[in-house]
Amino acid sequence: MPKINKYTDISEIDREAKKDLIDRHSPFIHCEDTAKAGEPFEVIVKMGNEYTHPDDFDHYIESVTLYNGNTLLAKATYISGALGHQKAHNTTKFTIIPTGKKLRLVAQGYCTVHGIWEGTEKVVEVN
Amino acid sequence: MPKINKYTDISEIDREAKKDLIDRHSPFIHCEDTAKAGEPFEVIVKMGNEYTHPDDFDHYIESVTLYNGNTLLAKATYISGALGHQKAHNTTKFTIIPTGKKLRLVAQGYCTVHGIWEGTEKVVEVN
Amino acid sequence: MPKINKYTDISEIDREAKKDLIDRHSPFIHCEDTAKAGEPFEVIVKMGNEYTHPDDFDHYIESVTLYNGNTLLAKATYISGALGHQKAHNTTKFTIIPTGKKLRLVAQGYCTVHGIWEGTEKVVEVN
Amino acid sequence: MPKINKYTDISEIDREAKKDLIDRHSPFIHCEDTAKAGEPFEVIVKMGNEYTHPDDFDHYIESVTLYNGNTLLAKATYISGALGHQKAHNTTKFTIIPTGKKLRLVAQGYCTVHGIWEGTEKVVEVN
Repeated sequence: MPKINKYTDISEIDREAKKDLIDRHSPFIHCEDTAKAGEPFEVIVKMGNEYTHPDDFDHYIESVTLYNGNTLLAKATYISGALGHQKAHNTTKFTIIPTGKKLRLVAQGYCTVHGIWEGTEKVVEVN
Repeated sequence: MPKINKYTDISEIDREAKKDLIDRHSPFIHCEDTAKAGEPFEVIVKMGNEYTHPDDFDHYIESVTLYNGNTLLAKATYISGALGHQKAHNTTKFTIIPTGKKLRLVAQGYCTVHGIWEGTEKVVEVN
Repeated sequence: MPKINKYTDISEIDREAKKDLIDRHSPFIHCEDTAKAGEPFEVIVKMGNEYTHPDDFDHYIESVTLYNGNTLLAKATYISGALGHQKAHNTTKFTIIPTGKKLRLVAQGYCTVHGIWEGTEKVVEVN
Repeated sequence: MPKINKYTDISEIDREAKKDLIDRHSPFIHCEDTAKAGEPFEVIVKMGNEYTHPDDFDHYIESVTLYNGNTLLAKATYISGALGHQKAHNTTKFTIIPTGKKLRLVAQGYCTVHGIWEGTEKVVEVN
Protein backbone atom coordinates (compact mmCIF):
# COMPACT_ATOMS: atom_id res chain seq x y z
CA MET A 1 0.00 0.00 0.00
CA PRO A 2 -0.67 2.53 -1.38
CA LYS A 3 -1.84 0.55 -4.36
CA ILE A 4 -0.20 1.37 -7.68
CA ASN A 5 -2.91 0.84 -10.27
CA LYS A 6 -1.40 -0.31 -13.55
CA TYR A 7 -2.60 0.41 -17.03
CA THR A 8 -3.94 -2.57 -18.91
CA ASP A 9 -4.92 -2.66 -22.55
CA ILE A 10 -8.54 -1.51 -22.58
CA SER A 11 -9.25 -3.14 -25.94
CA GLU A 12 -9.39 -6.40 -24.03
CA ILE A 13 -11.93 -5.10 -21.54
CA ASP A 14 -15.63 -5.40 -22.23
CA ARG A 15 -17.31 -3.17 -19.72
CA GLU A 16 -17.48 0.46 -20.87
CA ALA A 17 -17.28 1.92 -17.35
CA LYS A 18 -14.12 -0.02 -16.66
CA LYS A 19 -12.48 0.99 -19.94
CA ASP A 20 -13.25 4.59 -19.05
CA LEU A 21 -11.92 4.24 -15.50
CA ILE A 22 -8.63 2.73 -16.61
CA ASP A 23 -8.05 4.90 -19.63
CA ARG A 24 -8.82 8.28 -18.10
CA HIS A 25 -6.55 7.60 -15.14
CA SER A 26 -3.59 6.29 -17.08
CA PRO A 27 -0.65 8.51 -17.92
CA PHE A 28 0.40 7.98 -21.53
CA ILE A 29 3.91 8.95 -22.56
CA HIS A 30 4.24 10.49 -25.99
CA CYS A 31 7.77 10.97 -27.30
CA GLU A 32 10.14 9.90 -30.04
CA ASP A 33 11.59 6.38 -29.94
CA THR A 34 15.14 7.63 -30.09
CA ALA A 35 16.90 10.61 -28.55
CA LYS A 36 20.27 12.28 -28.96
CA ALA A 37 22.50 12.30 -25.92
CA GLY A 38 22.99 15.82 -24.59
CA GLU A 39 20.17 17.35 -26.59
CA PRO A 40 16.77 18.49 -25.35
CA PHE A 41 14.14 15.76 -25.64
CA GLU A 42 10.44 16.39 -25.28
CA VAL A 43 8.29 14.03 -23.26
CA ILE A 44 4.55 14.53 -23.11
CA VAL A 45 2.65 12.97 -20.23
CA LYS A 46 -1.04 12.93 -21.09
CA MET A 47 -3.69 11.50 -18.83
CA GLY A 48 -6.13 9.40 -20.80
CA ASN A 49 -6.13 8.45 -24.41
CA GLU A 50 -9.75 7.88 -25.41
CA TYR A 51 -11.44 9.07 -22.23
CA THR A 52 -11.14 12.30 -20.28
CA HIS A 53 -10.99 12.88 -16.55
CA PRO A 54 -13.09 15.41 -14.58
CA ASP A 55 -11.52 18.48 -13.01
CA ASP A 56 -13.88 18.84 -10.08
CA PHE A 57 -12.95 20.31 -6.71
CA ASP A 58 -13.25 16.90 -5.09
CA HIS A 59 -12.02 14.82 -8.02
CA TYR A 60 -9.15 15.86 -10.23
CA ILE A 61 -5.69 14.92 -11.42
CA GLU A 62 -3.45 16.43 -8.79
CA SER A 63 -0.09 15.53 -10.31
CA VAL A 64 1.88 13.56 -12.84
CA THR A 65 5.35 12.29 -12.14
CA LEU A 66 7.96 11.23 -14.67
CA TYR A 67 10.61 8.66 -13.82
CA ASN A 68 13.57 7.28 -15.71
CA GLY A 69 13.73 3.77 -14.27
CA ASN A 70 13.88 4.31 -10.53
CA THR A 71 14.98 7.91 -10.82
CA LEU A 72 12.61 10.83 -10.53
CA LEU A 73 13.03 13.33 -13.35
CA ALA A 74 10.20 15.79 -12.96
CA LYS A 75 6.75 16.29 -11.53
CA ALA A 76 3.90 18.59 -12.48
CA THR A 77 1.28 19.52 -9.92
CA TYR A 78 -2.08 21.03 -10.78
CA ILE A 79 -4.74 22.86 -8.83
CA SER A 80 -8.38 21.89 -9.29
CA GLY A 81 -9.69 24.37 -11.83
CA ALA A 82 -6.55 24.51 -13.97
CA LEU A 83 -8.59 22.60 -16.55
CA GLY A 84 -11.62 24.84 -16.19
CA HIS A 85 -13.53 22.35 -14.05
CA GLN A 86 -14.37 20.32 -17.11
CA LYS A 87 -13.46 16.89 -18.45
CA ALA A 88 -10.14 16.98 -20.24
CA HIS A 89 -6.79 15.32 -20.75
CA ASN A 90 -4.34 16.65 -18.18
CA THR A 91 -1.26 17.19 -20.33
CA THR A 92 2.28 18.28 -19.55
CA LYS A 93 5.30 18.45 -21.82
CA PHE A 94 8.58 18.13 -19.97
CA THR A 95 11.87 18.79 -21.72
CA ILE A 96 14.67 16.61 -20.44
CA ILE A 97 18.23 16.00 -21.64
CA PRO A 98 19.14 12.34 -21.78
CA THR A 99 22.48 10.87 -20.91
CA GLY A 100 23.43 7.19 -21.03
CA LYS A 101 22.28 4.59 -23.57
CA LYS A 102 18.61 4.27 -22.81
CA LEU A 103 15.74 6.01 -21.13
CA ARG A 104 13.20 3.83 -19.38
CA LEU A 105 10.45 6.40 -18.99
CA VAL A 106 7.49 5.68 -16.82
CA ALA A 107 4.84 8.07 -15.56
CA GLN A 108 2.46 8.04 -12.64
CA GLY A 109 -0.64 10.13 -12.20
CA TYR A 110 -2.46 10.85 -8.96
CA CYS A 111 -6.24 11.22 -8.88
CA THR A 112 -7.64 12.65 -5.66
CA VAL A 113 -10.33 9.97 -5.60
CA HIS A 114 -8.82 6.95 -7.35
CA GLY A 115 -5.20 7.18 -6.20
CA ILE A 116 -1.97 6.36 -8.04
CA TRP A 117 -1.95 5.09 -11.62
CA GLU A 118 1.08 3.99 -13.55
CA GLY A 119 1.37 3.78 -17.31
CA THR A 120 3.40 1.51 -19.53
CA GLU A 121 7.17 1.93 -19.62
CA LYS A 122 8.47 3.64 -22.73
CA VAL A 123 12.01 2.70 -23.72
CA VAL A 124 13.93 5.34 -25.68
CA GLU A 125 17.25 4.59 -27.35
CA VAL A 126 19.81 7.34 -26.76
CA ASN A 127 22.50 7.81 -29.39
CA MET B 1 11.71 38.47 2.08
CA PRO B 2 12.22 36.17 0.36
CA LYS B 3 13.16 38.53 -2.41
CA ILE B 4 11.25 38.16 -5.66
CA ASN B 5 13.73 39.05 -8.40
CA LYS B 6 11.96 40.63 -11.34
CA TYR B 7 12.86 40.40 -14.98
CA THR B 8 14.05 43.61 -16.55
CA ASP B 9 14.72 44.20 -20.22
CA ILE B 10 18.32 43.09 -20.70
CA SER B 11 18.76 45.16 -23.86
CA GLU B 12 19.08 48.13 -21.55
CA ILE B 13 21.81 46.52 -19.49
CA ASP B 14 25.46 46.92 -20.45
CA ARG B 15 27.30 44.37 -18.42
CA GLU B 16 27.36 40.96 -20.05
CA ALA B 17 27.45 39.03 -16.76
CA LYS B 18 24.37 40.84 -15.54
CA LYS B 19 22.46 40.28 -18.78
CA ASP B 20 23.28 36.59 -18.44
CA LEU B 21 22.25 36.45 -14.76
CA ILE B 22 18.89 38.07 -15.39
CA ASP B 23 18.03 36.32 -18.63
CA ARG B 24 18.93 32.77 -17.63
CA HIS B 25 16.90 33.04 -14.42
CA SER B 26 13.81 34.58 -15.91
CA PRO B 27 10.78 32.48 -16.79
CA PHE B 28 9.45 33.49 -20.19
CA ILE B 29 5.87 32.65 -21.03
CA HIS B 30 5.23 31.56 -24.61
CA CYS B 31 1.61 31.26 -25.69
CA GLU B 32 -0.99 32.67 -28.03
CA ASP B 33 -2.40 36.14 -27.34
CA THR B 34 -5.96 34.88 -27.37
CA ALA B 35 -7.61 31.73 -26.08
CA LYS B 36 -11.00 30.11 -26.43
CA ALA B 37 -12.97 29.67 -23.23
CA GLY B 38 -13.37 26.03 -22.35
CA GLU B 39 -10.73 24.77 -24.78
CA PRO B 40 -7.25 23.49 -23.98
CA PHE B 41 -4.65 26.25 -24.14
CA GLU B 42 -0.92 25.59 -24.18
CA VAL B 43 1.40 27.68 -22.05
CA ILE B 44 5.14 27.18 -22.28
CA VAL B 45 7.29 28.36 -19.39
CA LYS B 46 10.88 28.53 -20.54
CA MET B 47 13.74 29.65 -18.34
CA GLY B 48 16.00 32.02 -20.20
CA ASN B 49 15.71 33.44 -23.65
CA GLU B 50 19.22 34.17 -24.87
CA TYR B 51 21.16 32.56 -22.03
CA THR B 52 21.03 29.10 -20.52
CA HIS B 53 21.19 28.03 -16.89
CA PRO B 54 23.41 25.27 -15.47
CA ASP B 55 21.97 21.99 -14.21
CA ASP B 56 24.59 21.26 -11.55
CA PHE B 57 23.93 19.34 -8.35
CA ASP B 58 24.38 22.50 -6.30
CA HIS B 59 22.92 24.95 -8.82
CA TYR B 60 19.85 24.21 -10.89
CA ILE B 61 16.32 25.28 -11.66
CA GLU B 62 14.32 23.40 -9.06
CA SER B 63 10.86 24.49 -10.17
CA VAL B 64 8.67 26.76 -12.23
CA THR B 65 5.28 27.91 -11.07
CA LEU B 66 2.47 29.29 -13.21
CA TYR B 67 -0.09 31.71 -11.80
CA ASN B 68 -3.19 33.31 -13.24
CA GLY B 69 -3.21 36.57 -11.34
CA ASN B 70 -3.04 35.55 -7.70
CA THR B 71 -4.18 32.01 -8.37
CA LEU B 72 -1.81 29.10 -8.69
CA LEU B 73 -2.47 26.98 -11.77
CA ALA B 74 0.38 24.52 -11.95
CA LYS B 75 3.93 23.86 -10.90
CA ALA B 76 6.68 21.71 -12.40
CA THR B 77 9.50 20.47 -10.21
CA TYR B 78 12.75 19.10 -11.54
CA ILE B 79 15.54 17.04 -10.08
CA SER B 80 19.14 18.10 -10.72
CA GLY B 81 20.23 16.00 -13.69
CA ALA B 82 16.91 16.14 -15.54
CA LEU B 83 18.75 18.39 -18.00
CA GLY B 84 21.79 16.13 -18.21
CA HIS B 85 23.89 18.32 -15.93
CA GLN B 86 24.48 20.76 -18.74
CA LYS B 87 23.47 24.32 -19.52
CA ALA B 88 20.00 24.46 -21.02
CA HIS B 89 16.63 26.15 -21.01
CA ASN B 90 14.40 24.47 -18.44
CA THR B 91 11.15 24.20 -20.39
CA THR B 92 7.67 23.00 -19.46
CA LYS B 93 4.48 23.12 -21.46
CA PHE B 94 1.37 23.18 -19.33
CA THR B 95 -2.07 22.73 -20.85
CA ILE B 96 -4.73 24.71 -19.06
CA ILE B 97 -8.38 25.45 -19.87
CA PRO B 98 -9.28 29.10 -19.45
CA THR B 99 -12.52 30.43 -18.09
CA GLY B 100 -13.45 34.07 -17.63
CA LYS B 101 -12.50 36.99 -19.88
CA LYS B 102 -8.78 37.21 -19.41
CA LEU B 103 -5.79 35.29 -18.23
CA ARG B 104 -3.10 37.21 -16.42
CA LEU B 105 -0.34 34.64 -16.62
CA VAL B 106 2.79 35.08 -14.63
CA ALA B 107 5.54 32.57 -13.94
CA GLN B 108 8.14 32.21 -11.24
CA GLY B 109 11.26 30.09 -11.35
CA TYR B 110 13.35 28.95 -8.40
CA CYS B 111 17.11 28.60 -8.70
CA THR B 112 18.77 26.76 -5.82
CA VAL B 113 21.48 29.42 -5.63
CA HIS B 114 19.83 32.62 -6.83
CA GLY B 115 16.32 32.25 -5.42
CA ILE B 116 12.96 33.27 -6.84
CA TRP B 117 12.63 35.01 -10.21
CA GLU B 118 9.45 36.35 -11.71
CA GLY B 119 8.86 37.06 -15.38
CA THR B 120 6.67 39.59 -17.07
CA GLU B 121 2.91 39.17 -16.92
CA LYS B 122 1.33 37.90 -20.10
CA VAL B 123 -2.27 38.93 -20.65
CA VAL B 124 -4.37 36.58 -22.78
CA GLU B 125 -7.82 37.53 -24.05
CA VAL B 126 -10.34 34.73 -23.64
CA ASN B 127 -13.23 34.59 -26.07
CA MET C 1 1.79 39.80 -9.30
CA PRO C 2 0.98 37.36 -7.88
CA LYS C 3 0.31 39.44 -4.80
CA ILE C 4 2.13 38.42 -1.66
CA ASN C 5 -0.25 39.21 1.18
CA LYS C 6 1.68 40.18 4.30
CA TYR C 7 0.72 39.60 7.87
CA THR C 8 -0.11 42.70 9.85
CA ASP C 9 -0.74 42.88 13.56
CA ILE C 10 -4.43 42.14 13.91
CA SER C 11 -4.66 43.81 17.32
CA GLU C 12 -4.62 47.08 15.42
CA ILE C 13 -7.51 46.09 13.19
CA ASP C 14 -11.08 46.76 14.21
CA ARG C 15 -13.18 44.74 11.88
CA GLU C 16 -13.66 41.16 13.05
CA ALA C 17 -13.95 39.71 9.55
CA LYS C 18 -10.65 41.29 8.56
CA LYS C 19 -8.86 40.09 11.69
CA ASP C 20 -10.08 36.61 10.88
CA LEU C 21 -9.06 36.81 7.22
CA ILE C 22 -5.54 37.95 8.02
CA ASP C 23 -4.92 35.70 10.99
CA ARG C 24 -6.22 32.45 9.56
CA HIS C 25 -4.15 32.88 6.38
CA SER C 26 -0.90 33.84 8.04
CA PRO C 27 1.86 31.31 8.62
CA PHE C 28 3.26 31.71 12.12
CA ILE C 29 6.72 30.35 12.82
CA HIS C 30 7.19 28.77 16.22
CA CYS C 31 10.75 27.89 17.21
CA GLU C 32 13.48 28.67 19.70
CA ASP C 33 15.29 32.02 19.47
CA THR C 34 18.68 30.37 19.31
CA ALA C 35 19.95 27.24 17.61
CA LYS C 36 23.14 25.21 17.72
CA ALA C 37 25.06 24.95 14.48
CA GLY C 38 25.03 21.43 13.14
CA GLU C 39 22.25 20.19 15.39
CA PRO C 40 18.64 19.44 14.47
CA PHE C 41 16.39 22.44 14.99
CA GLU C 42 12.62 22.22 14.97
CA VAL C 43 10.57 24.82 13.15
CA ILE C 44 6.80 24.73 13.34
CA VAL C 45 4.83 26.51 10.66
CA LYS C 46 1.27 26.96 11.84
CA MET C 47 -1.41 28.68 9.83
CA GLY C 48 -3.41 31.03 11.99
CA ASN C 49 -2.99 31.96 15.59
CA GLU C 50 -6.40 32.94 16.92
CA TYR C 51 -8.49 31.95 13.93
CA THR C 52 -8.75 28.70 11.97
CA HIS C 53 -9.00 28.12 8.23
CA PRO C 54 -11.52 25.88 6.48
CA ASP C 55 -10.47 22.64 4.79
CA ASP C 56 -13.12 22.56 2.08
CA PHE C 57 -12.66 21.02 -1.34
CA ASP C 58 -12.73 24.44 -2.96
CA HIS C 59 -11.01 26.36 -0.16
CA TYR C 60 -8.08 25.00 1.78
CA ILE C 61 -4.45 25.54 2.65
CA GLU C 62 -2.64 23.79 -0.19
CA SER C 63 0.92 24.32 1.04
CA VAL C 64 3.31 26.04 3.37
CA THR C 65 6.83 26.93 2.33
CA LEU C 66 9.77 27.68 4.61
CA TYR C 67 12.61 29.95 3.51
CA ASN C 68 15.86 30.99 5.12
CA GLY C 69 16.27 34.45 3.66
CA ASN C 70 16.01 33.93 -0.09
CA THR C 71 16.73 30.23 0.12
CA LEU C 72 14.03 27.59 0.07
CA LEU C 73 14.42 25.04 2.84
CA ALA C 74 11.31 22.92 2.71
CA LYS C 75 7.70 22.81 1.64
CA ALA C 76 4.72 20.82 2.85
CA THR C 77 1.80 20.20 0.54
CA TYR C 78 -1.62 19.06 1.73
CA ILE C 79 -4.62 17.55 0.01
CA SER C 80 -8.06 18.92 0.82
CA GLY C 81 -9.40 16.59 3.49
CA ALA C 82 -6.11 16.10 5.33
CA LEU C 83 -7.71 18.22 8.06
CA GLY C 84 -10.98 16.31 8.00
CA HIS C 85 -12.80 19.01 6.03
CA GLN C 86 -13.13 21.11 9.15
CA LYS C 87 -11.72 24.41 10.38
CA ALA C 88 -8.27 23.93 11.85
CA HIS C 89 -4.73 25.21 12.04
CA ASN C 90 -2.69 23.63 9.27
CA THR C 91 0.51 22.74 11.13
CA THR C 92 3.81 21.27 10.03
CA LYS C 93 7.00 20.77 12.01
CA PHE C 94 10.11 20.74 9.87
CA THR C 95 13.45 19.69 11.30
CA ILE C 96 16.34 21.56 9.76
CA ILE C 97 20.04 21.76 10.62
CA PRO C 98 21.35 25.30 10.69
CA THR C 99 24.76 26.40 9.48
CA GLY C 100 26.09 29.95 9.49
CA LYS C 101 25.49 32.66 12.13
CA LYS C 102 21.80 33.38 11.70
CA LEU C 103 18.63 31.98 10.30
CA ARG C 104 16.19 34.43 8.78
CA LEU C 105 13.16 32.19 8.66
CA VAL C 106 10.10 33.24 6.77
CA ALA C 107 7.10 31.18 5.77
CA GLN C 108 4.49 31.48 3.08
CA GLY C 109 1.15 29.74 2.94
CA TYR C 110 -1.03 29.24 -0.11
CA CYS C 111 -4.82 29.29 0.14
CA THR C 112 -6.66 28.03 -2.92
CA VAL C 113 -9.03 31.00 -2.75
CA HIS C 114 -7.04 33.81 -1.16
CA GLY C 115 -3.59 33.20 -2.64
CA ILE C 116 -0.13 33.64 -1.11
CA TRP C 117 0.35 34.87 2.45
CA GLU C 118 3.66 35.65 4.09
CA GLY C 119 4.30 35.80 7.82
CA THR C 120 6.76 37.81 9.82
CA GLU C 121 10.45 36.98 9.57
CA LYS C 122 11.84 35.12 12.56
CA VAL C 123 15.55 35.67 13.22
CA VAL C 124 17.34 32.82 14.99
CA GLU C 125 20.86 33.19 16.36
CA VAL C 126 23.03 30.18 15.55
CA ASN C 127 25.88 29.39 17.92
CA MET D 1 8.92 0.31 -12.28
CA PRO D 2 9.85 2.53 -10.61
CA LYS D 3 10.76 0.05 -7.91
CA ILE D 4 9.22 0.62 -4.52
CA ASN D 5 11.82 -0.57 -2.03
CA LYS D 6 10.16 -1.96 1.08
CA TYR D 7 11.43 -1.83 4.62
CA THR D 8 12.40 -5.18 6.07
CA ASP D 9 13.33 -5.85 9.66
CA ILE D 10 17.05 -5.16 9.81
CA SER D 11 17.55 -7.26 12.94
CA GLU D 12 17.34 -10.25 10.62
CA ILE D 13 20.02 -8.96 8.30
CA ASP D 14 23.67 -9.75 8.91
CA ARG D 15 25.59 -7.41 6.70
CA GLU D 16 26.18 -4.00 8.32
CA ALA D 17 26.17 -2.10 5.01
CA LYS D 18 22.79 -3.55 4.09
CA LYS D 19 21.28 -2.80 7.50
CA ASP D 20 22.46 0.78 7.07
CA LEU D 21 21.12 1.05 3.52
CA ILE D 22 17.68 -0.19 4.45
CA ASP D 23 17.33 1.62 7.74
CA ARG D 24 18.51 5.06 6.65
CA HIS D 25 16.19 5.04 3.64
CA SER D 26 13.08 3.85 5.42
CA PRO D 27 10.41 6.25 6.57
CA PHE D 28 9.29 5.39 10.10
CA ILE D 29 5.91 6.61 11.26
CA HIS D 30 5.73 7.72 14.87
CA CYS D 31 2.29 8.43 16.26
CA GLU D 32 -0.23 7.30 18.85
CA ASP D 33 -2.09 4.02 18.30
CA THR D 34 -5.47 5.65 18.65
CA ALA D 35 -6.86 8.97 17.51
CA LYS D 36 -10.00 10.95 18.16
CA ALA D 37 -12.20 11.63 15.16
CA GLY D 38 -12.26 15.31 14.29
CA GLU D 39 -9.29 16.24 16.46
CA PRO D 40 -5.77 17.13 15.35
CA PHE D 41 -3.50 14.10 15.27
CA GLU D 42 0.26 14.36 14.97
CA VAL D 43 2.14 12.03 12.65
CA ILE D 44 5.91 12.11 12.53
CA VAL D 45 7.64 10.71 9.47
CA LYS D 46 11.29 10.14 10.28
CA MET D 47 13.79 8.72 7.83
CA GLY D 48 15.94 6.10 9.49
CA ASN D 49 15.81 4.70 12.95
CA GLU D 50 19.32 3.59 13.84
CA TYR D 51 21.16 4.99 10.83
CA THR D 52 21.27 8.47 9.32
CA HIS D 53 21.20 9.54 5.69
CA PRO D 54 23.58 12.02 4.04
CA ASP D 55 22.41 15.45 2.91
CA ASP D 56 24.81 15.92 0.02
CA PHE D 57 24.08 17.90 -3.12
CA ASP D 58 23.98 14.74 -5.17
CA HIS D 59 22.50 12.44 -2.53
CA TYR D 60 19.76 13.51 -0.17
CA ILE D 61 16.21 12.83 0.91
CA GLU D 62 14.18 14.92 -1.49
CA SER D 63 10.75 14.21 -0.07
CA VAL D 64 8.53 12.18 2.20
CA THR D 65 4.93 11.42 1.37
CA LEU D 66 2.21 10.36 3.77
CA TYR D 67 -0.73 8.24 2.61
CA ASN D 68 -3.83 6.97 4.33
CA GLY D 69 -4.41 3.74 2.45
CA ASN D 70 -4.45 4.76 -1.19
CA THR D 71 -5.14 8.40 -0.44
CA LEU D 72 -2.43 11.03 -0.36
CA LEU D 73 -2.58 13.18 2.77
CA ALA D 74 0.53 15.33 2.67
CA LYS D 75 4.03 15.59 1.31
CA ALA D 76 7.12 17.42 2.52
CA THR D 77 9.85 18.36 0.07
CA TYR D 78 13.35 19.35 1.10
CA ILE D 79 16.21 21.10 -0.62
CA SER D 80 19.70 19.65 -0.32
CA GLY D 81 21.28 21.61 2.52
CA ALA D 82 18.16 21.83 4.68
CA LEU D 83 19.94 19.37 6.96
CA GLY D 84 23.22 21.28 6.89
CA HIS D 85 24.86 18.89 4.43
CA GLN D 86 25.42 16.39 7.20
CA LYS D 87 24.12 12.95 8.07
CA ALA D 88 20.81 13.20 9.88
CA HIS D 89 17.28 11.88 10.19
CA ASN D 90 15.03 13.81 7.84
CA THR D 91 12.01 14.42 10.09
CA THR D 92 8.62 16.00 9.47
CA LYS D 93 5.63 16.23 11.76
CA PHE D 94 2.35 16.52 9.92
CA THR D 95 -0.86 17.34 11.74
CA ILE D 96 -3.88 15.68 10.23
CA ILE D 97 -7.49 15.35 11.37
CA PRO D 98 -8.84 11.80 11.05
CA THR D 99 -12.32 10.86 10.01
CA GLY D 100 -13.68 7.33 9.66
CA LYS D 101 -12.87 4.31 11.83
CA LYS D 102 -9.25 3.67 11.01
CA LEU D 103 -6.18 5.27 9.55
CA ARG D 104 -3.89 3.06 7.50
CA LEU D 105 -0.86 5.32 7.44
CA VAL D 106 2.02 4.55 5.18
CA ALA D 107 4.93 6.75 4.22
CA GLN D 108 7.30 6.83 1.30
CA GLY D 109 10.64 8.60 1.10
CA TYR D 110 12.56 9.51 -2.02
CA CYS D 111 16.35 9.46 -2.08
CA THR D 112 17.93 11.12 -5.11
CA VAL D 113 20.30 8.17 -5.53
CA HIS D 114 18.44 5.16 -4.19
CA GLY D 115 14.86 5.93 -5.25
CA ILE D 116 11.56 5.28 -3.52
CA TRP D 117 11.35 3.57 -0.13
CA GLU D 118 8.20 2.57 1.67
CA GLY D 119 7.87 1.91 5.38
CA THR D 120 5.57 -0.38 7.27
CA GLU D 121 1.88 0.46 7.48
CA LYS D 122 0.76 1.89 10.79
CA VAL D 123 -2.88 1.26 11.65
CA VAL D 124 -4.49 3.82 13.96
CA GLU D 125 -7.90 3.23 15.55
CA VAL D 126 -10.11 6.31 15.33
CA ASN D 127 -12.77 6.76 18.03
